[in-house]
Amino acid sequence: MQLRKIGELKLLEEIRARFSSASETGNSGIIIGIGDDAAVVAPRKERVLITTDMMNEGVHFDLGFTSPVQLGFKLVSVNVSDIMAMGGRPEYLFLNIAVKDDTDEGFFWDLYEGISSAADLYKVSLLGGDLSSAVHDMVLSATVVGSGGRVVARSGAAAGDKIYVTSTVGDSACGLEILKRLTPESRAAVMSKGKERGEQESLSLTVGSSLVTLDWRIAEPLIRRHLVPVARDSGGIAPYATSMIDVSDGLFMDLCRICDASNTGARIFLENVPVSEEMRHAAGVMGLDPLDLATSGGEDYELLFTVNGRDASSVMGNELTDKGQRGLSLFTDGAKRSRRIGTVPGGSDPSLSFKITCIGEITAKDRTIVDRAGRESVLRSGGYQHFGSP
Amino acid sequence: MQLRKIGELKLLEEIRARFSSASETGNSGIIIGIGDDAAVVAPRKERVLITTDMMNEGVHFDLGFTSPVQLGFKLVSVNVSDIMAMGGRPEYLFLNIAVKDDTDEGFFWDLYEGISSAADLYKVSLLGGDLSSAVHDMVLSATVVGSGGRVVARSGAAAGDKIYVTSTVGDSACGLEILKRLTPESRAAVMSKGKERGEQESLSLTVGSSLVTLDWRIAEPLIRRHLVPVARDSGGIAPYATSMIDVSDGLFMDLCRICDASNTGARIFLENVPVSEEMRHAAGVMGLDPLDLATSGGEDYELLFTVNGRDASSVMGNELTDKGQRGLSLFTDGAKRSRRIGTVPGGSDPSLSFKITCIGEITAKDRTIVDRAGRESVLRSGGYQHFGSP
Repeated sequence: MQLRKIGELKLLEEIRARFSSASETGNSGIIIGIGDDAAVVAPRKERVLITTDMMNEGVHFDLGFTSPVQLGFKLVSVNVSDIMAMGGRPEYLFLNIAVKDDTDEGFFWDLYEGISSAADLYKVSLLGGDLSSAVHDMVLSATVVGSGGRVVARSGAAAGDKIYVTSTVGDSACGLEILKRLTPESRAAVMSKGKERGEQESLSLTVGSSLVTLDWRIAEPLIRRHLVPVARDSGGIAPYATSMIDVSDGLFMDLCRICDASNTGARIFLENVPVSEEMRHAAGVMGLDPLDLATSGGEDYELLFTVNGRDASSVMGNELTDKGQRGLSLFTDGAKRSRRIGTVPGGSDPSLSFKITCIGEITAKDRTIVDRAGRESVLRSGGYQHFGSP
Repeated sequence: MQLRKIGELKLLEEIRARFSSASETGNSGIIIGIGDDAAVVAPRKERVLITTDMMNEGVHFDLGFTSPVQLGFKLVSVNVSDIMAMGGRPEYLFLNIAVKDDTDEGFFWDLYEGISSAADLYKVSLLGGDLSSAVHDMVLSATVVGSGGRVVARSGAAAGDKIYVTSTVGDSACGLEILKRLTPESRAAVMSKGKERGEQESLSLTVGSSLVTLDWRIAEPLIRRHLVPVARDSGGIAPYATSMIDVSDGLFMDLCRICDASNTGARIFLENVPVSEEMRHAAGVMGLDPLDLATSGGEDYELLFTVNGRDASSVMGNELTDKGQRGLSLFTDGAKRSRRIGTVPGGSDPSLSFKITCIGEITAKDRTIVDRAGRESVLRSGGYQHFGSP
């Protein structure tokens, strides 16, 4: 049924009913949840953190590449990641969603399915928002409110601090490059929402004028990193971090943001930048430079942070929780609505640790990249920005 | 210059520079303002209030009817109004704005001019947000975070409570009806951004197949209520209110929301519903029923609230601050950027009181409208909802 035949009030009622259990039992700080003019909460710590981010059809996402479940999940993840990047704990979620009124009800509930999977994963409660019609493009906007004690700003890095990044970078950008090059048949298979799962062995990509194949086990984690990214839990990092940011626009651009805010330089050892085997392989197949993807590709949502030298061993020795292993399967869809979180085989243990890698150190002023051969070049920001680039 | 030639980062830098003084001096609760992954504030009262609302081109606004300054002002007002309707104090503002990348820079800064006028008026600090490109329609989304002690929910009304509304209702809907009927020449005059101000004596409207005229002094306050609504300050009301809501979707629909949440009925005396002389006159000229506009027209942003009988005299005797008199002139534009708030002639005294009117009382169950002649009918919600109506 099309949304225009259901009506806004009925939809809001249904959303409220679906989310109310989580909203009312999950967090004791909730005084007034969904359904009044504003939500009211009792702050649980000394600091309240607020972030908001928007995703627009045709700009941030292409419905030919992504399913509504994936989209809903990603919307929450990117906002939660911003709270995590301050060392905060995400608590409450607010949504503004505009969709065309001929949108099918199934699409809408799939979107909510993704949102709700992410809300469960990060333990955030949906407390309000707005639902309206759009003339052309779908627009998704979310606000996440969190709490924290000591928060970690971008501005706290000091010369001599070590620079770290979690897991690997460039995977998401590589996943997007794969999606863009898929043949129509392979794209249909990726978009098939699980029907062919297991039968899938390789994908066909058009690279220049050639057709190449990419093993599904290589492509899948990269595509997943792009379509359903998982925000890293900064709980084990924040106590030691002097500055922190999540890598959303590219490693170098986000590192430059730390340097700008802290009024410092940085020295990065290029060969230390962590790159996954899958990314290196897939980039090779597509004729792309893996280091370029790793340093300027966006949307990894890894944590980039600095630590005073004396705390370096504490960070490295710390057991870090990897929610990435408990993220959403690429193939969660409406048909699996009852099974909210698709676990990736073998990865349901919440105590799995994720790797952190030291990639360089903060300097007083100069921004330098050192390559494998010891040659130095100037570190510049790079990556995607809206409204063209300079 | 088009936004695509300026670039997102440069725009964000400029916004940050323009807003930073307000952000850093206005509110002492700000720990980290614009420019990090998330904003961080120290809660100033026991309760934190959060609301979010979206305005979409072609759905919530028509750029043929409204200027970017007006649009920016309204975006903030409608969100502030939600915080006021809970008895809270608005403090922080977050924006998500998506505009086409061929948008002219002047349009963009006019939009910010309106936002900034409203931020000044309500004393809210812009602490973050997101700026991105849109393929087709402009989308504006705002989140306002406020603080409060005792908050006023929709659910606190009890049988016997008196029902009040601030100022007059239906003006905004009437203003919209005027805008829709303007001849191209009159519309051009209204959109002229002040050049012809003062010369304007009457507007021409097409009503059915006739051309009628409407005195500018009658039309202007109605159009202003629609284009640049001002959120009422609930400070003098909240201590006495048992329930409260802002009238955004129509008096009866919003009253029914109070009744639904409080599990009560209501008895409304139709002749008590406050209607402005301007609205009554303009509705007559257009052949519309003023009571219909007053009871089901949306976007008045008046406060609708209930008070226990014993407190009625306290509320009525209370001096209420009328920020409405200090709102934005219809003709604030980029050329007047230095003069941020256009004051309406004769209305700059912040201590002016606004009227509140008792329109009925809460009952145990029955929802009844009593007309001038004493005839009773059933009170039903009515008003605009997205995705069609039932």
